[in-house]
Amino acid sequence: MTVKVGVIGTGSIGAEHVRRLAQQVSGAEVTAVFDVDRERAIEVGAPVGAAVHFAAHDVIDDPAVDAVLIASPGDLHAEQVLACLAAGKPVLCEKPLATTAESALKVVEAEAAHGRSLVRVGFMRRHDFGYRQVKAVLDGGGIGEPLLMHCVHRNASAPSWFTSEMSLTDSVVHEIDAARWLLGAEIVAATVVAVKSSPLAGGLRDPQIVILETAGGVVIEVESFVNCQYGYEVRCEVVGSTGTVSLDTPSTGAVTRSGGRTQPLPDDWRTRFGQAYLDELQAWVDGRPGGATAWDGYAATAVAEACLRSLATGARSTVALADAPTGSPQ
Amino acid sequence: MTVKVGVIGTGSIGAEHVRRLAQQVSGAEVTAVFDVDRERAIEVGAPVGAAVHFAAHDVIDDPAVDAVLIASPGDLHAEQVLACLAAGKPVLCEKPLATTAESALKVVEAEAAHGRSLVRVGFMRRHDFGYRQVKAVLDGGGIGEPLLMHCVHRNASAPSWFTSEMSLTDSVVHEIDAARWLLGAEIVAATVVAVKSSPLAGGLRDPQIVILETAGGVVIEVESFVNCQYGYEVRCEVVGSTGTVSLDTPSTGAVTRSGGRTQPLPDDWRTRFGQAYLDELQAWVDGRPGGATAWDGYAATAVAEACLRSLATGARSTVALADAPTGSPQ
Amino acid sequence: MTVKVGVIGTGSIGAEHVRRLAQQVSGAEVTAVFDVDRERAIEVGAPVGAAVHFAAHDVIDDPAVDAVLIASPGDLHAEQVLACLAAGKPVLCEKPLATTAESALKVVEAEAAHGRSLVRVGFMRRHDFGYRQVKAVLDGGGIGEPLLMHCVHRNASAPSWFTSEMSLTDSVVHEIDAARWLLGAEIVAATVVAVKSSPLAGGLRDPQIVILETAGGVVIEVESFVNCQYGYEVRCEVVGSTGTVSLDTPSTGAVTRSGGRTQPLPDDWRTRFGQAYLDELQAWVDGRPGGATAWDGYAATAVAEACLRSLATGARSTVALADAPTGSPQ
Amino acid sequence: MTVKVGVIGTGSIGAEHVRRLAQQVSGAEVTAVFDVDRERAIEVGAPVGAAVHFAAHDVIDDPAVDAVLIASPGDLHAEQVLACLAAGKPVLCEKPLATTAESALKVVEAEAAHGRSLVRVGFMRRHDFGYRQVKAVLDGGGIGEPLLMHCVHRNASAPSWFTSEMSLTDSVVHEIDAARWLLGAEIVAATVVAVKSSPLAGGLRDPQIVILETAGGVVIEVESFVNCQYGYEVRCEVVGSTGTVSLDTPSTGAVTRSGGRTQPLPDDWRTRFGQAYLDELQAWVDGRPGGATAWDGYAATAVAEACLRSLATGARSTVALADAPTGSPQ
Repeated sequence: MTVKVGVIGTGSIGAEHVRRLAQQVSGAEVTAVFDVDRERAIEVGAPVGAAVHFAAHDVIDDPAVDAVLIASPGDLHAEQVLACLAAGKPVLCEKPLATTAESALKVVEAEAAHGRSLVRVGFMRRHDFGYRQVKAVLDGGGIGEPLLMHCVHRNASAPSWFTSEMSLTDSVVHEIDAARWLLGAEIVAATVVAVKSSPLAGGLRDPQIVILETAGGVVIEVESFVNCQYGYEVRCEVVGSTGTVSLDTPSTGAVTRSGGRTQPLPDDWRTRFGQAYLDELQAWVDGRPGGATAWDGYAATAVAEACLRSLATGARSTVALADAPTGSPQ
Repeated sequence: MTVKVGVIGTGSIGAEHVRRLAQQVSGAEVTAVFDVDRERAIEVGAPVGAAVHFAAHDVIDDPAVDAVLIASPGDLHAEQVLACLAAGKPVLCEKPLATTAESALKVVEAEAAHGRSLVRVGFMRRHDFGYRQVKAVLDGGGIGEPLLMHCVHRNASAPSWFTSEMSLTDSVVHEIDAARWLLGAEIVAATVVAVKSSPLAGGLRDPQIVILETAGGVVIEVESFVNCQYGYEVRCEVVGSTGTVSLDTPSTGAVTRSGGRTQPLPDDWRTRFGQAYLDELQAWVDGRPGGATAWDGYAATAVAEACLRSLATGARSTVALADAPTGSPQ
Repeated sequence: MTVKVGVIGTGSIGAEHVRRLAQQVSGAEVTAVFDVDRERAIEVGAPVGAAVHFAAHDVIDDPAVDAVLIASPGDLHAEQVLACLAAGKPVLCEKPLATTAESALKVVEAEAAHGRSLVRVGFMRRHDFGYRQVKAVLDGGGIGEPLLMHCVHRNASAPSWFTSEMSLTDSVVHEIDAARWLLGAEIVAATVVAVKSSPLAGGLRDPQIVILETAGGVVIEVESFVNCQYGYEVRCEVVGSTGTVSLDTPSTGAVTRSGGRTQPLPDDWRTRFGQAYLDELQAWVDGRPGGATAWDGYAATAVAEACLRSLATGARSTVALADAPTGSPQ
Repeated sequence: MTVKVGVIGTGSIGAEHVRRLAQQVSGAEVTAVFDVDRERAIEVGAPVGAAVHFAAHDVIDDPAVDAVLIASPGDLHAEQVLACLAAGKPVLCEKPLATTAESALKVVEAEAAHGRSLVRVGFMRRHDFGYRQVKAVLDGGGIGEPLLMHCVHRNASAPSWFTSEMSLTDSVVHEIDAARWLLGAEIVAATVVAVKSSPLAGGLRDPQIVILETAGGVVIEVESFVNCQYGYEVRCEVVGSTGTVSLDTPSTGAVTRSGGRTQPLPDDWRTRFGQAYLDELQAWVDGRPGGATAWDGYAATAVAEACLRSLATGARSTVALADAPTGSPQ
């Protein structure tokens, strides 16, 4: 019983998904691909025997496609996910679900109208072993009542086209989803704090600190630093009424040489979250519950929008979520 | 060449200072003490052969006293330090130097008028081995240009008379001084962020997050949690343009038993900073440079006042420092 | 191109392999199983659609079986592997390859006669991320010339039928293989050191220390403790002429509560090495090079035999390996 | 009540002791010194106001000397300690107490005859905070019954005159004393295991592994590596029937830069054990109980002798301790 997957977008992350689906995920094959760069699509799709289509919608409508993975540019996501819903096919959409809360909400509503849970959003951290350990401690009451959370999200360097806004919509959005998931609570306000920028950040506002607040008053403080120079680092600490639980950089050992004892760091998110991506795909192909829903994708986008407003104005910005549609398959 | 020290205030911390001066500091003896609780003063002073006076000023004026250590209640500090200056005697004043910036400034001005550096303020972290390692890395350019700083300051539990304000003036004030010292920069603004309070905090606003800003735009984010239940923890991480440096809880080993590998935590600040207190006293008795000056005490109090204003109003509060007096022995 | 795998032995570890092959390994299916406990074989094989045979050799000879995984009792391994070689089918044999060096050597010779590399031995640590990091540091010259190695191998508790000998042949044998692989050198002598036994070890000699020596004089010191009570722990440190590299218990975070900061430990080898087992299977199914060969299985068994002799006599015991057969597909 | 200390030997370690006694230890002063290098003695003794004598015995006999610290070459220790006993003066003797067990025993007997506990041996680790934490866990039953112990003792590099024997008598002797103290048991046998020597060890047998055994069967495995190149490292792990306790390199933080997260290491024993030396001196001057006795010094020397025999013969060597003299002030 093999799931035939069509992949839209075969750039960096799309190509990695194709490779994983073809070589590492049990019970999956990639039967169709599309990319605006047709040569790239052929380069990625041909070795795994996938048909290379001329349009995204041809992938969605291909009868040899059971389920669709979307790794196209973010501003195309919402429309493509809606097309998958129209075709009644399960879809795993790389984050973001949409670039505006308004269009993300349309996806939520369309899925609710459809009546089946067909949409998953690629917040891969929910599948990371370390994050799951944190979640288990929280759910088991291991630190009492969560009160606040510290998060660090650092990349060695950002590409030249990266913007201060993308630090919020592309990086911090992961902390937004992780915090909602770990705490089981919606975020109702966001404040971006002005910080001195690194002289190596190419004119970006970088690092940035974001203060998020849940309805219940839990505060999530996030540092995003996309040009930290030294490596990739994602950490968090949840502070509860009786203890704390932390996600640290995974470590399996160290090298001691002149200068000290050094634990290596991952180069980038591919290394750090490679296993999480794989587990995400396997769970999706298996049809197992879990993973971020359309609602999660909508909520994350809505909070990211509040961050953008705060960045622009310097003031705290509130998040007004729509009511979840009746029958919404959260 | 023994330094004869008079100690004003023989409560918890004063008594420990007396014990250290009498038993652990080389070249010091305690010749006079005073406390409003005379029985307590006798209990502490008699075993070390100190005269037990009836007033703080008797200690200051005692010809058998070369230098004065002030560990009385904070609202008496400024006036007692001024008396020491008037007597021309070196004084080590437990923090705070004063409970208002206005009165702290008077001390700065009086010392400047006097023309000699006679005042030290008991910010003992400047003598902690871990903090000094952080300082050495920063001063050596080891992380490039400092951009932001994360701080955590947790106590197992606060006494019943502790207030939300004291979490700022008594706890966060240590981070205020440490950040000024580590970064070599004045703090110009403070914002207290409302956080959900622990149900175990006895009605306090606890934990609290404070955002401090330096003139150069470096942001210092501080968590103060005085009822964290589990132990005493002081940590910080300075994030620079090319790397980071952290102060972690000192560790010398671990116990592995069913459940995992556990590194013990200190019970309280006495355990965590006992050696720093001792080194502070030895440096003071030796007359070595270093340690917090009257100006440092003034600046810390001024920033703490801004924190109190922000706590009351919910808004960001700026810090307006006076000009340092000409001839001020910073 | 699915690889059809037959599995001989569906006990604890065999059943896990069946599950992984059926659900997690890409490009594999389990088409046939056998176990002496036929009910167990049906219980494990039926859900994945495998034929349940009445004899191990029926699995090997089944035309619907491309490759064989052997997870039967160790004393049956050699004969079953030889049957696979006779049938010309690739075989992944759980350790040990054989219970005597003599019979392991027969496998080596049979494979050499066959002329193709068909045998892999299930030393899964070679696929563990942490061990691979250690190997990369060593191969990259990161610690200079390796001189000695410390190893710790602890299990919470051993089953009642476990013996002092099995601590060497079943536990230490993993360190034997890991050391040979990491150091790229054969082990030429073994000494078992008598240690006080734990009162909780049920009469076993437990813990034990084993001293292994390579031809080049590198010493590997191994602690095996199969009733340590608290969890599962595998660590090692290789000491080189300019530095050291360690494999520690993988860590992704910690919980801080009253008593300290605790990093959890895995319960057992299933948790600790689950991912390594999966990667081992995927590599085998993919036909990728790497993994332990028949020669590795032979050498490990020969060293384990030397350990047994030393345990019996109390004296150092040398290892005399046969010459590798010409054409041996190491 | 100042203790007047005479110091015999003002070389590297002796000069540091003089400095500590004069500047950091409360209640002590250095009133007399001697060194065969008279210029050196003047250089060290003059600044602290000590008389500079022409012979070691002049220090011992000086009426202005209450207690003697011996930091002369090891082969002079026993005779000088005996002279202190004859003079009835407390003496702190740097390790070793004597270079032969025979002469160390004479000190034990002389002290017993004298009837007062006057001798302390400078095994400073007993005063180290980390070791004391290990001791507290062991004494509190925190890991059940101790069964074995792993120790690592590494120096960046040894001076040119260092020998393979000194790695045992000068380095491993610290582990010998620490193990006896932590375990509360005598060591009855020693085996030196031949290990490949580092090409950077200048012809020494380096590293070496030593296996020590207590009467109760506890095994202590010690790595001594005096040319490890990278820094100073002393660690140990005691394995008990229900858990383990470790002494790690003390850590107060880390620097993260390209390449990873690095915890610094101490350069040498002066840095690592500076505080322990100070606490040792303060405890001695205070006349507090604790610290290694003459018997401890004798036992350590006897075990070190067994190590030397094993190094020479390659065989296990037993330790035959004399009976403790009646009235011996252990």
